[in-house]
Amino acid sequence: MVLLSSFSYQQKKRIVFFGDSITQAGVQPTGYITKLGQLLNEKKIGDKYELIGAGISGNKVYDLYLRMEDDVLSKKPDAVVIWVGVNDVWHKRTSGTGTDADKFEKFYNAIIKKLKENNIAVLICTPAAIGEKTDFTNELDGDLNKYAAIIRSIAKNNNCPLIDLRQAVLNYNLANNKENKESGILTTDRVHLNEKGNQFVAEEMYKVLSQSVMK
Amino acid sequence: MVLLSSFSYQQKKRIVFFGDSITQAGVQPTGYITKLGQLLNEKKIGDKYELIGAGISGNKVYDLYLRMEDDVLSKKPDAVVIWVGVNDVWHKRTSGTGTDADKFEKFYNAIIKKLKENNIAVLICTPAAIGEKTDFTNELDGDLNKYAAIIRSIAKNNNCPLIDLRQAVLNYNLANNKENKESGILTTDRVHLNEKGNQFVAEEMYKVLSQSVMK
Amino acid sequence: MVLLSSFSYQQKKRIVFFGDSITQAGVQPTGYITKLGQLLNEKKIGDKYELIGAGISGNKVYDLYLRMEDDVLSKKPDAVVIWVGVNDVWHKRTSGTGTDADKFEKFYNAIIKKLKENNIAVLICTPAAIGEKTDFTNELDGDLNKYAAIIRSIAKNNNCPLIDLRQAVLNYNLANNKENKESGILTTDRVHLNEKGNQFVAEEMYKVLSQSVMK
Amino acid sequence: MVLLSSFSYQQKKRIVFFGDSITQAGVQPTGYITKLGQLLNEKKIGDKYELIGAGISGNKVYDLYLRMEDDVLSKKPDAVVIWVGVNDVWHKRTSGTGTDADKFEKFYNAIIKKLKENNIAVLICTPAAIGEKTDFTNELDGDLNKYAAIIRSIAKNNNCPLIDLRQAVLNYNLANNKENKESGILTTDRVHLNEKGNQFVAEEMYKVLSQSVMK
Repeated sequence: MVLLSSFSYQQKKRIVFFGDSITQAGVQPTGYITKLGQLLNEKKIGDKYELIGAGISGNKVYDLYLRMEDDVLSKKPDAVVIWVGVNDVWHKRTSGTGTDADKFEKFYNAIIKKLKENNIAVLICTPAAIGEKTDFTNELDGDLNKYAAIIRSIAKNNNCPLIDLRQAVLNYNLANNKENKESGILTTDRVHLNEKGNQFVAEEMYKVLSQSVMK
Repeated sequence: MVLLSSFSYQQKKRIVFFGDSITQAGVQPTGYITKLGQLLNEKKIGDKYELIGAGISGNKVYDLYLRMEDDVLSKKPDAVVIWVGVNDVWHKRTSGTGTDADKFEKFYNAIIKKLKENNIAVLICTPAAIGEKTDFTNELDGDLNKYAAIIRSIAKNNNCPLIDLRQAVLNYNLANNKENKESGILTTDRVHLNEKGNQFVAEEMYKVLSQSVMK
Repeated sequence: MVLLSSFSYQQKKRIVFFGDSITQAGVQPTGYITKLGQLLNEKKIGDKYELIGAGISGNKVYDLYLRMEDDVLSKKPDAVVIWVGVNDVWHKRTSGTGTDADKFEKFYNAIIKKLKENNIAVLICTPAAIGEKTDFTNELDGDLNKYAAIIRSIAKNNNCPLIDLRQAVLNYNLANNKENKESGILTTDRVHLNEKGNQFVAEEMYKVLSQSVMK
Repeated sequence: MVLLSSFSYQQKKRIVFFGDSITQAGVQPTGYITKLGQLLNEKKIGDKYELIGAGISGNKVYDLYLRMEDDVLSKKPDAVVIWVGVNDVWHKRTSGTGTDADKFEKFYNAIIKKLKENNIAVLICTPAAIGEKTDFTNELDGDLNKYAAIIRSIAKNNNCPLIDLRQAVLNYNLANNKENKESGILTTDRVHLNEKGNQFVAEEMYKVLSQSVMK
């Protein structure tokens, strides 16, 4: 029985969610990681997966790179979901320390390379939003779209399942934000998810996870 | 004869084009102001209008405000075509000295108010482009769209004919930039007009001028 | 008696303090304008002057320009103390909308010109601080010094009494901030004055006012 | 003879200069690396050292990190002179992609750690200048001083010989730039070295190299 239990424990797939403040909030009671766990329970597969949040506020791609040993590899995960990019764009405006597009790509690839060398499955997300307006006047949309396009290309080149939150959120807003609000649909403040947004992201992630590491 | 000549001279409507480096280049041999003059000659109405370029490289809305006495009012024009906004957005990124959206609107309105007080007809343009890519990844498109939206609202509130170059260039690129190039369609460098672009702008301006000050 | 009262009222010199959030806070119970009023009372000359705060948070030089009619000229002051510049430098970093040095000078001169045309005495201040460290590592010190130098030159060219708060605060910090703290000496947060700072500014202003408009 | 030659070749200490555009230009005929080689020849020790330039224009600390395998470790150097920091500060203003101070320190330490693990001696330089004015109005001096201070602390914590170019250039300018010029003393354009500047840096580097890896 002890062996069995131990065996059963070993069977739990460990998934680390690696990201910024959105992911840091993801482990809160209404956060997207918590909600994904609930979704897995509803599907009666909750006991098969251990979901671990590894989000730190303000993180850009090279912050993830710098702490991947401590916060990801040391946890020996089976899979990692990377969700980063908002601060790489946003900090250009707010502190002059955003990330150059070409360096963004290099560090992103370096993270994936190191995870794959450790036999960890890698799923990657596009950044969801900096502003929810639907008339194309969110100030940073062009740059955010540029970095989302880079991530899509990285996913393709590395055969990583893509969770295209950018596209999903754009589509959702086009359908549901008829009043062209800058926040309040899926976010509280243009960037961070409200409860509806957390549920939405949990579901989008499940769609892709269920076709890859949860298959 | 002298009187006649003088009389004829008085009849010429004087139109000042007030703007930035795009307008500064507009008086060059292949510039949009030169091309508009040629267009008026083709229409046999070239002798009715005097077209004056008043563009200075790097100008933002408050630069126009600061030099309107010297460069516009002193010329006693019948009409002024204002075309500004690219640098108000662009300089946020390149030098940290772009223009806040609310101040942009205030100075724009202050310019229009002063021109109208001098019985000068005012036509206003939206900024054309910072990048010609059609997949929504031009870095500054969101902010440029925001300022274009402000200008459309200013035009409406002040009953100024609007030359919506932003919309016209977007439409043209969607139809003619299938390869998603960042420049080379209507611009040389994402911002400044190539010869095709100058012709395009001259025609767009004529469409609106012919319905207003040239009617 | 009514006439006498009215006459007495007319005798009060009205001084407007025209600036940003530091001046907005200046009318608070421990603010520098309040403290200057108390200082005048101690000197038994408080009833000779009416001190009016006209500070708005986030203001840059062109914000002052845009609201000088409403907030200064309409009050028919005898003298105006202009204190602006911190946001013109700071906003370059925090929002990409600081003020170009040459435009800063042009708007500053335009404000002075209009005040002088209305026979209003003008005193001008250099910006005090963005950070109080004394080892020359306050991030924006170079640029702040540049704008302070521009203001000193404007004062000289326009024969305006100069209240050199930048120099005074630097000197004070060199003597009193031996631990190289970034705030807490004269400011609460590197920019806004603590009570000691408000007292310090009130005294610095009095030194110059007592030699000019209060002489 | 072949063996002797080969043996002699093996004896040459290989020193890599690892940096940005200043170092990229350092291998030019009048560049600082070339001049340092000439200095070593004058001292009759030129045949003991092989000097290798590894500078790339626009590089920030994390660019060095990303290419250290290819451009430094693969060359199996005995010593590396790291000179970086100007772009980490400058790009905050020019492109919104400077480096956060804390990340600058982390990547710098990561580079040193990896070099030391490979038994490579590490010497580090402070960034020289962004502007040569001596009245404390070089726009980015505060931030540059801050990063120089970080580098001094890194040198101390890692027991790396420090080539304090920032201090040396400041001292030189205070003595030799009485007219407060923004460039033309040791730089051509506020940042890149003129011939005098290249000579100056070669000598400053020799002072420290001769006390450490060349001792």
